[in-house]
Amino acid sequence: MAGDKAVLLISCLDQRGIIARVSNHLYRLDCNIITSDQHTDDEDGHFFWRISFESQRLPVPEIRAELERSMDSLLPGLGLKWRLYDAARRDRMVLMVSRLPHCMSDLLSRRHVGELDADIVAVISNHPDLGPLVTPFNVPFTVIPVEKGAKAKAEETLLGELRALNADTVVLARYMQVLSGDFLRKWGKPIVNIHHSFLPAFAGARPYKQAHDRGVKLIGATAHYVTEELDAGPIIAQATTEVTHRDTVADLARKGKDIEVAVLAKAVRAHLQKRVLVHGNRTIVFD
Amino acid sequence: MAGDKAVLLISCLDQRGIIARVSNHLYRLDCNIITSDQHTDDEDGHFFWRISFESQRLPVPEIRAELERSMDSLLPGLGLKWRLYDAARRDRMVLMVSRLPHCMSDLLSRRHVGELDADIVAVISNHPDLGPLVTPFNVPFTVIPVEKGAKAKAEETLLGELRALNADTVVLARYMQVLSGDFLRKWGKPIVNIHHSFLPAFAGARPYKQAHDRGVKLIGATAHYVTEELDAGPIIAQATTEVTHRDTVADLARKGKDIEVAVLAKAVRAHLQKRVLVHGNRTIVFD
Amino acid sequence: MAGDKAVLLISCLDQRGIIARVSNHLYRLDCNIITSDQHTDDEDGHFFWRISFESQRLPVPEIRAELERSMDSLLPGLGLKWRLYDAARRDRMVLMVSRLPHCMSDLLSRRHVGELDADIVAVISNHPDLGPLVTPFNVPFTVIPVEKGAKAKAEETLLGELRALNADTVVLARYMQVLSGDFLRKWGKPIVNIHHSFLPAFAGARPYKQAHDRGVKLIGATAHYVTEELDAGPIIAQATTEVTHRDTVADLARKGKDIEVAVLAKAVRAHLQKRVLVHGNRTIVFD
Amino acid sequence: MAGDKAVLLISCLDQRGIIARVSNHLYRLDCNIITSDQHTDDEDGHFFWRISFESQRLPVPEIRAELERSMDSLLPGLGLKWRLYDAARRDRMVLMVSRLPHCMSDLLSRRHVGELDADIVAVISNHPDLGPLVTPFNVPFTVIPVEKGAKAKAEETLLGELRALNADTVVLARYMQVLSGDFLRKWGKPIVNIHHSFLPAFAGARPYKQAHDRGVKLIGATAHYVTEELDAGPIIAQATTEVTHRDTVADLARKGKDIEVAVLAKAVRAHLQKRVLVHGNRTIVFD
Repeated sequence: MAGDKAVLLISCLDQRGIIARVSNHLYRLDCNIITSDQHTDDEDGHFFWRISFESQRLPVPEIRAELERSMDSLLPGLGLKWRLYDAARRDRMVLMVSRLPHCMSDLLSRRHVGELDADIVAVISNHPDLGPLVTPFNVPFTVIPVEKGAKAKAEETLLGELRALNADTVVLARYMQVLSGDFLRKWGKPIVNIHHSFLPAFAGARPYKQAHDRGVKLIGATAHYVTEELDAGPIIAQATTEVTHRDTVADLARKGKDIEVAVLAKAVRAHLQKRVLVHGNRTIVFD
Repeated sequence: MAGDKAVLLISCLDQRGIIARVSNHLYRLDCNIITSDQHTDDEDGHFFWRISFESQRLPVPEIRAELERSMDSLLPGLGLKWRLYDAARRDRMVLMVSRLPHCMSDLLSRRHVGELDADIVAVISNHPDLGPLVTPFNVPFTVIPVEKGAKAKAEETLLGELRALNADTVVLARYMQVLSGDFLRKWGKPIVNIHHSFLPAFAGARPYKQAHDRGVKLIGATAHYVTEELDAGPIIAQATTEVTHRDTVADLARKGKDIEVAVLAKAVRAHLQKRVLVHGNRTIVFD
Repeated sequence: MAGDKAVLLISCLDQRGIIARVSNHLYRLDCNIITSDQHTDDEDGHFFWRISFESQRLPVPEIRAELERSMDSLLPGLGLKWRLYDAARRDRMVLMVSRLPHCMSDLLSRRHVGELDADIVAVISNHPDLGPLVTPFNVPFTVIPVEKGAKAKAEETLLGELRALNADTVVLARYMQVLSGDFLRKWGKPIVNIHHSFLPAFAGARPYKQAHDRGVKLIGATAHYVTEELDAGPIIAQATTEVTHRDTVADLARKGKDIEVAVLAKAVRAHLQKRVLVHGNRTIVFD
Repeated sequence: MAGDKAVLLISCLDQRGIIARVSNHLYRLDCNIITSDQHTDDEDGHFFWRISFESQRLPVPEIRAELERSMDSLLPGLGLKWRLYDAARRDRMVLMVSRLPHCMSDLLSRRHVGELDADIVAVISNHPDLGPLVTPFNVPFTVIPVEKGAKAKAEETLLGELRALNADTVVLARYMQVLSGDFLRKWGKPIVNIHHSFLPAFAGARPYKQAHDRGVKLIGATAHYVTEELDAGPIIAQATTEVTHRDTVADLARKGKDIEVAVLAKAVRAHLQKRVLVHGNRTIVFD
């Protein structure tokens, strides 16, 4: 009974009948809907839909071709955007790191035990330190140093590397450099970052120091898509953990590591499963 | 654009095309699907579906009559069960309590601020103590004492009362009597209980004492539907909270109160919104 | 064996021998230390100590008189501050509210079941709405309206009322007026506030709206001492809870209520048990 | 100002003056108490005390010699037990694993970044699979297979190995063999195990399958000291995480991994810092 699997993401203005029309259409194509999640934004009436389905007759590329012929006439006049992901095609993911290993090691480990639907095609760092920890996972480790005053050049090298790798997704797993707007525009594909605070509190540098100085009783971590404005992109996942007056800045960093790891893994997993849709500066994250 | 609102629950064997057929049918009845949640049990292939929709043309009773005519032929041979709930009809809920007020007061407060889609038509207790706390909420408070050796008689009175109240749902909000299988069968409608442990650990009497003796580092609370076997019914919601070696049994009871309240409120809310489906001894709880 | 109970709070510059000297002194006074918690600030070397003890021979007022004679010479030259609390003397607490009942009802309920070591001597509101919910608890409910342009007058009335009540602690349990610096200076005793965000994020008005607009995946609540700068006082307790893209601003308010209640109760309990010490704009909260 | 650091653990029957006598004694030895945590068991009157201090004059071995001379006369007739740990001496820890890497990799990583006060002197497994993941950490990896019917022989080898390594602490980081009572008695030193359920629920084999069958809404993990009765030893740390009807047994295992890792790390850290005291079948875990 198992057929080809795919995920269909749809966003458009809401209207009566969208679900009936599309599910009917997929039914006629011999596709069996496995999961279906929808959301309508109360404020602007936008409709978001994620369907995972199994195609019993046609391979996914033929489903795609068919949808390209039919979707616009199926849902006309609604500003429709849609995208079909073939479950057989694994995302090509690049991790970028600096000197702190915890997020990188965690993602490599999760990939190793089959928990992430992606190939990690490279780890790129501005420092050589973490190389040995990558070795057992058989993933290439590349150092692209960022010299003072030569950031543009480093970003050019990085861009070439990412393109050569044909990467789909970049994950900044505690990469301690700010990527320029110029780089972001040229790259143009999703970049997930982990910031070690509960944004919007403590954006920018040294968030654990900021948190300690303010005397908060929780610290947080935030995974978000990178946009040109620092630490201001659409949030995918957040978590907090308790701290006390006993905790120094170093203790906050130690305790914070665990939620950074958890939040980044959750966000990356959701992203890879095409469960995250961006709507303005907010995200819809289906379960 | 607002029409009559309703919730449709469907369970049947899974088969390709169910979603297409039903959503198409609702579309032809001028119903707009607002939310849709589905689940297929991997082990036995049962399919569960909850749809909330808005009917633009027909009132809900006519939709119901139409579905009664059509559903069996729409989904034949799948052991179909379905139920339609008119959102305009509020559940009639009865709270049963003994001497501890926290769960009762919380549910009364939530109802008071409009957080629960139900009328609380009575609070019934085997003790008079909590009466004064019910007064400000304008809900009748009835005492049905349970004399030693006269439980059957008390249950008969209770049954008469619940029937007279035309109650839909009974919530045992720390009611410290065990209801007999005979009573449960006669009553035949859902009863939600809060048990002050993380079931299946510490079922039965004095769970906080049991937890203390075992030296656990978390205590829990469990909301479940009542079945004849004590503390063994389908679980709706659970939560835990941290405890330490400093906590006496009394401290566990104090800390536990807060999660009892939270878990029961969550379960009752889900139940009233028809988001809970029972499947054997397990539940599906849609978000 | 039970004697008079008391709590001693000490803060001074750290030095070797403080614990030995004070515990020795209490031993000679026939006091048995029951709990002892200490903290040294790594940055400025301040030492904070909380001791609860049982006096086997002398009543607490005589212990206090004795400490007044001896403490300065026991710990000379360390900028010593200390305070002794007689456990037999219950704090006089005033709740201030506006129209939302949840925090008030929760504190009244906790007091009712003996969970808070205080007398709630009044509930004061700028609106009459919540009066009926206070009635069953036998606590006076007083309305002090705040007319537009007449805030100074209302604060004067409030100050008179608090003084007449001989209140020790004021709790702003969703009191929707900002108290002026002038009032705070005149009153001069601790005021605990609950703010419905994870401070420092979303200070000021409509934090749930701010949180929704930013698209956060957690919302928070913060209990803090009130200082002249709005929402910037020393934080006592914080908590967060998960939200999703489905949640409207009203949903955030509904979900947030539960953590407001939990955080405020935790902070008030710690404050009443003299477990909170203020150090600059931060707090030490002993377990 | 920094001197030699040490931790002193004391347990005895409670009596007035213990703190005064010991802190005085340490003061005369020129030791500065840095942290002090105490607990008295309400039921049996046992007193537990953990002091960390800095010795300004004497090295820790001389402090130990001095305490050996003085402690019995300082606290006579109280069934005193005490132990002094020199902070300069790092514990020698052995990890035991089978085929699942997550707990092992996490502990190796934490050690690598300096988060655990121990040397990991070996990883021992009954399978060769995890060897490559140990390589980057420069820790010997030893395989001791457990052949069917030859468990006693394997345990003998293991015992020899642990003795040769002069190990202080053994951590069963998802080691899938039950150690015999005979082995435990011969070894006689602490063994920390992680069990993948919220004990006492779901002890024994396949806890995630058991949890799935019962339909719980939370799954748990428990770190405990190993005793002869399976999964019944003193609990050090526990945590739970939410699951839903969507989660298969495999999903529970995936989600459970994260709390297994967190709970085991927390327990190992507390154990290594001598913050765990065993009292009957319960633990005192100081913060």
